[in-house]
Amino acid sequence: MEAELIAWLRGRVPPHPLVRLGLGDDAAVLNLDGVRDCVVTTDLLSDQVDFELSRVDPRRVGRKALAANLSDLAAMAAKPLAGVVALLLPRQGGKELAVALYEGLLPLAEKYGLAVAGGDTNCWDGPLAINITLLGKVTDCGALKRSGARPGDHILVTGAFGGSILGRHLDFEPRVWESLELNARYKLHAGIDVSDGLSCDLAHVAEESHCGAVIDLDTVPVADDARRLAGQLADGSTPLDHALGDGEDFELILAVPPADAEQMLAEQPLSVRLTEIGQFVAEPGLWARTAAGDRRRLDPRGWEHK
Amino acid sequence: MEAELIAWLRGRVPPHPLVRLGLGDDAAVLNLDGVRDCVVTTDLLSDQVDFELSRVDPRRVGRKALAANLSDLAAMAAKPLAGVVALLLPRQGGKELAVALYEGLLPLAEKYGLAVAGGDTNCWDGPLAINITLLGKVTDCGALKRSGARPGDHILVTGAFGGSILGRHLDFEPRVWESLELNARYKLHAGIDVSDGLSCDLAHVAEESHCGAVIDLDTVPVADDARRLAGQLADGSTPLDHALGDGEDFELILAVPPADAEQMLAEQPLSVRLTEIGQFVAEPGLWARTAAGDRRRLDPRGWEHK
Repeated sequence: MEAELIAWLRGRVPPHPLVRLGLGDDAAVLNLDGVRDCVVTTDLLSDQVDFELSRVDPRRVGRKALAANLSDLAAMAAKPLAGVVALLLPRQGGKELAVALYEGLLPLAEKYGLAVAGGDTNCWDGPLAINITLLGKVTDCGALKRSGARPGDHILVTGAFGGSILGRHLDFEPRVWESLELNARYKLHAGIDVSDGLSCDLAHVAEESHCGAVIDLDTVPVADDARRLAGQLADGSTPLDHALGDGEDFELILAVPPADAEQMLAEQPLSVRLTEIGQFVAEPGLWARTAAGDRRRLDPRGWEHK
Repeated sequence: MEAELIAWLRGRVPPHPLVRLGLGDDAAVLNLDGVRDCVVTTDLLSDQVDFELSRVDPRRVGRKALAANLSDLAAMAAKPLAGVVALLLPRQGGKELAVALYEGLLPLAEKYGLAVAGGDTNCWDGPLAINITLLGKVTDCGALKRSGARPGDHILVTGAFGGSILGRHLDFEPRVWESLELNARYKLHAGIDVSDGLSCDLAHVAEESHCGAVIDLDTVPVADDARRLAGQLADGSTPLDHALGDGEDFELILAVPPADAEQMLAEQPLSVRLTEIGQFVAEPGLWARTAAGDRRRLDPRGWEHK
């Protein structure tokens, strides 16, 4: 089955200047001449955890698997270079499924100039799992880390949050160009992409930076999906709760020194809106501030991958 | 759970000169300065397909997952650099299992100077799957490909074949140093590691090289395990059948021009034995020749990962 899939892929994957030796050998050989700092990220998605295969077009699943990995490169402000795709397919209909997954991910790879350099295809009696590993290049502006935030930095985010489960978690656009653009134009101290949830991922940045963070609750951009979901669930959770906790928004959280934050907000250089939602502070932990000025501890409510 | 595992790993994974940014961020950053041609390989192993978790120590499973990937680097004559590990764990006992898997693979990583740079840890309701992606460096001697064999080249193999299911498929030593040593000292035209089976993988080399291959059946090194397994099964299959078809020997098959082949066989530069088992020929396909000189088509019997 793998041989057939490789034959099909060879006709679909365009040649790429990075790839010296591609699909069909024991491994791929990439020309990384001139790549000094290389970013490596791996992300494994599985049925019933990251998607429900029985309810969605597998092309959207393939696209999501790649987009989630691209989002990790965006979180590092790295330029996508190449990737390898490992599939674990249910035996029944495995080949058709593999083709559909690739049909979903290949256009996204092309859009971001990513070489699909190789992979591994397996069948088993269990559900679908997809693992993608990407290589990216750190630009001259350096990598964006979780650990660089400083007290006084402003917290800026792209886009809006909450309710991604209604569909956006499959079809989101990874903020690859946005991250590269911002990292080139402004001073960024730290960054992360939102997979676990806005408050949870902000807490990760604060923790790795040995500081704390305060969110101004009334400034959090709440997605329409968050309002729709709160309405549908009617379980007492507010749209803001969903914005803070849902996760899989795949937007960026950035720690930006005040002068650059002011400039970014004034210039709004992206097609997606940049919003300031708070500041990093010296005292460790995560805090919420209301419009009235109350400040209280905020529990990072994002769902951690248990 | 992932946070706990990362904390544990940070105490276990020694610093590595390649790793600028390791465990705990959105991605790892590697210093690949001076790495021109980079080999990337990914291999996904799953319960009931590549191992039986209920019957073996999970440390052996973790070791195998890494060893199988290292064997792919060996097949390319690439020096191991760094790897990322993605785990898909059963919810019940997931953390203990993850620790055991890492306890199995970390010593092997250290042995081969491999940086364990990052990973992804997930739980689900299905069985265990492990995906490892490795980066390696092509040396000045170039990468060993499947596609370089020429008619007249001798077929040389390391070690012995068959019956690996009795235990060797878990505890084999990947031929990393052997491959680098041979590629540095002799002219090698092509190479592969034996995962699918001796005849099947030899057929892969022949096919990618647009030529054929003849195996001299009486010269094939048959492992003791192949004899034991044939005895245990008593299903009419011979030890030679097992040597040709079983797979997961993780030995090397090499296409070597005659003069270098002669020298290699005379010098026996490795601690594992090198054996000549036939020649590449112009006519496509796979052939078997008996001691009596009969030549017939050989069906590549290796089990392809269906």
